[in-house]
Amino acid sequence: MPLITLTTDFGTQDAYVACMKGVIYGIQPQAMIVDITHEIRPQHIRDAAFVLVTAVDYFPAGTVHVVVVDPGVGSARRAIIAQTGDAYFVAPDNGVLSLVLQSAPDALLYEITNPAYQLPHISNTFHGRDIFAPVGAHLASGVSPDIIGEPIDDLVTFLPHLPQYQGNQLIGEIIYIDHFGNCISNIQADQLDPDPCYRVIIDGQLLELYDTYAAVNSLQPLALIGSSGYLEIAVRDGNASKILSLSLGAKVALKPVNCTS
Amino acid sequence: MPLITLTTDFGTQDAYVACMKGVIYGIQPQAMIVDITHEIRPQHIRDAAFVLVTAVDYFPAGTVHVVVVDPGVGSARRAIIAQTGDAYFVAPDNGVLSLVLQSAPDALLYEITNPAYQLPHISNTFHGRDIFAPVGAHLASGVSPDIIGEPIDDLVTFLPHLPQYQGNQLIGEIIYIDHFGNCISNIQADQLDPDPCYRVIIDGQLLELYDTYAAVNSLQPLALIGSSGYLEIAVRDGNASKILSLSLGAKVALKPVNCTS
Amino acid sequence: MPLITLTTDFGTQDAYVACMKGVIYGIQPQAMIVDITHEIRPQHIRDAAFVLVTAVDYFPAGTVHVVVVDPGVGSARRAIIAQTGDAYFVAPDNGVLSLVLQSAPDALLYEITNPAYQLPHISNTFHGRDIFAPVGAHLASGVSPDIIGEPIDDLVTFLPHLPQYQGNQLIGEIIYIDHFGNCISNIQADQLDPDPCYRVIIDGQLLELYDTYAAVNSLQPLALIGSSGYLEIAVRDGNASKILSLSLGAKVALKPVNCTS
Repeated sequence: MPLITLTTDFGTQDAYVACMKGVIYGIQPQAMIVDITHEIRPQHIRDAAFVLVTAVDYFPAGTVHVVVVDPGVGSARRAIIAQTGDAYFVAPDNGVLSLVLQSAPDALLYEITNPAYQLPHISNTFHGRDIFAPVGAHLASGVSPDIIGEPIDDLVTFLPHLPQYQGNQLIGEIIYIDHFGNCISNIQADQLDPDPCYRVIIDGQLLELYDTYAAVNSLQPLALIGSSGYLEIAVRDGNASKILSLSLGAKVALKPVNCTS
Repeated sequence: MPLITLTTDFGTQDAYVACMKGVIYGIQPQAMIVDITHEIRPQHIRDAAFVLVTAVDYFPAGTVHVVVVDPGVGSARRAIIAQTGDAYFVAPDNGVLSLVLQSAPDALLYEITNPAYQLPHISNTFHGRDIFAPVGAHLASGVSPDIIGEPIDDLVTFLPHLPQYQGNQLIGEIIYIDHFGNCISNIQADQLDPDPCYRVIIDGQLLELYDTYAAVNSLQPLALIGSSGYLEIAVRDGNASKILSLSLGAKVALKPVNCTS
Repeated sequence: MPLITLTTDFGTQDAYVACMKGVIYGIQPQAMIVDITHEIRPQHIRDAAFVLVTAVDYFPAGTVHVVVVDPGVGSARRAIIAQTGDAYFVAPDNGVLSLVLQSAPDALLYEITNPAYQLPHISNTFHGRDIFAPVGAHLASGVSPDIIGEPIDDLVTFLPHLPQYQGNQLIGEIIYIDHFGNCISNIQADQLDPDPCYRVIIDGQLLELYDTYAAVNSLQPLALIGSSGYLEIAVRDGNASKILSLSLGAKVALKPVNCTS
């Protein structure tokens, strides 16, 4: 049973997402559709790229991921397919696949060109419905991407913000704030020594690094490695972003300390 | 595989929608259910009618659309089925089908009367769960509407607000504001001459008509024909409703101009 | 076709819910997944218990309910399965099943212990993805709970707040406020005499008990028995919580009166 995911900034109050699903079921009635989210902040390509990369490893091989955060809809920006060993991605060529393709340097890339796999009428403002949904449904039905499009060898990508060393401190920043107010940084677990003796400095405040939210008392702040492998700042049973007044871009310093101190 | 859509004002924080889905799967385990939206403003029948009409054309023939925006639940208002050439609609008889049935004057209409196709206990406050969901599931399973109800020949409908000419200007109004803040008017694409020389006047401001959001600079306002075929007022990468202080009912004037001006 | 429901406090802006669904489909590609809600207020176990109990009776026998409101994730709290005559429940052992198990005193209880039915790597912060989702998928696939876990004979439960008599008045409280602002009390329909002559006193205001919202004029307050069998305070076409300034815990008195008065 072919699996298709949807990631958009369309919200859920209008019929935009439903139109995409109607188009998909019209082409592939057996499709299973999973909403990754439709609450990407409007036009925020980096947010979409981050949410997507935290999800894709948990989907079965062969899943088709349709991503529509598309401020350039109707302009000359290309519509693309990326095929990795495990998955297909269908998206506008605006960088939204930058993070998922970092671990897939051999991905095959295509520009979507064949009108036979799109709706007969293409609007200027809603390619999610008119191009990306039908292409996703045809891929899920087994149509080869080289029939739907033409091979290309470059993509628009953005450079992820990477943490930098200043002396012995690794300086990163908050790149995503989740529903709970947990503030997720761009420092990844594999940048930490197995030696657990670190402190995290954020906005002048020194936080200890723990394994679980429950390691501190209710409403106390802490740092920990979150479920996607990134260092995050949290408040137990609370909203760290609000309580600590942290926003996107806030600096996070990881400082090794003497374990006995 | 029978397809059922749901459009309600129930929101997504409670179990109301899930109860409807549980009832549907209990009757038709093969059903595919698509949420059109559950975020219709509470009791706003006109919003629901608009969202529904923008979605239905994109669903395969035979889809059953269950619509529950039902301020009169438990009163004498009827529960109805409308059968068009392409789809079934199940809804309270309060005008919520006014727009989808404009293009289906020959729809067959039924009042839902047969208790065998409803839950055994009918509450006074939640016919979505007790009547509309089970009727939708039975229709999707192939039960004929004339077994579920009795033919009727009239419905409650509301008159859509239609744009009017004042001199050579077509005067419409904002009838829907979407998730992005795009302000959708009741002026439809087929009311525009193929000649592209129009200006749009809204709240004293003159806007040019473009094909795409990307035709103007970021945060600039524009008018365009949106994906559902209505004239809409937008701000590129921004929220037109907030930036331009536009609300439902705001007047929109479409003014033909000399193309060379 | 195995049916799995999800109830969490994860919200819908991140990929947390999608990760759970990806894991489920990887194990059981035929699963039908229904979201009960993901908008439980973060860490509010009592809200989750209430929403769950209003939903489960409407799902077919054999449904697997996965519930993840889990402030103690990563601590020593157990992960459990409860098997009733009709359903399976998979949840942290923190009281979230208190209400659904009140009507199932003979439920079989298990602690989840077998790593073969969990993801290979268990994070400290997201057991929804790593333990509860895969266990739910295996149960839906027919794996017996006594293979996934070990029998236990106790659970963490909370005592529901029950209404109390003061003289001839039954004094309850508001335990849940829904999307519409309806204020649901802990007084249940079967605590009312079939004799309809009651008044409801809330915050000094005397309300009549009606059958339907439509029994009063628009924006007028009323009391009625809601769709889940609890006495609720509503405002027709309005938000009772806002209009009447009612919050969780507000006292509700049910007072029998002379029918002729």
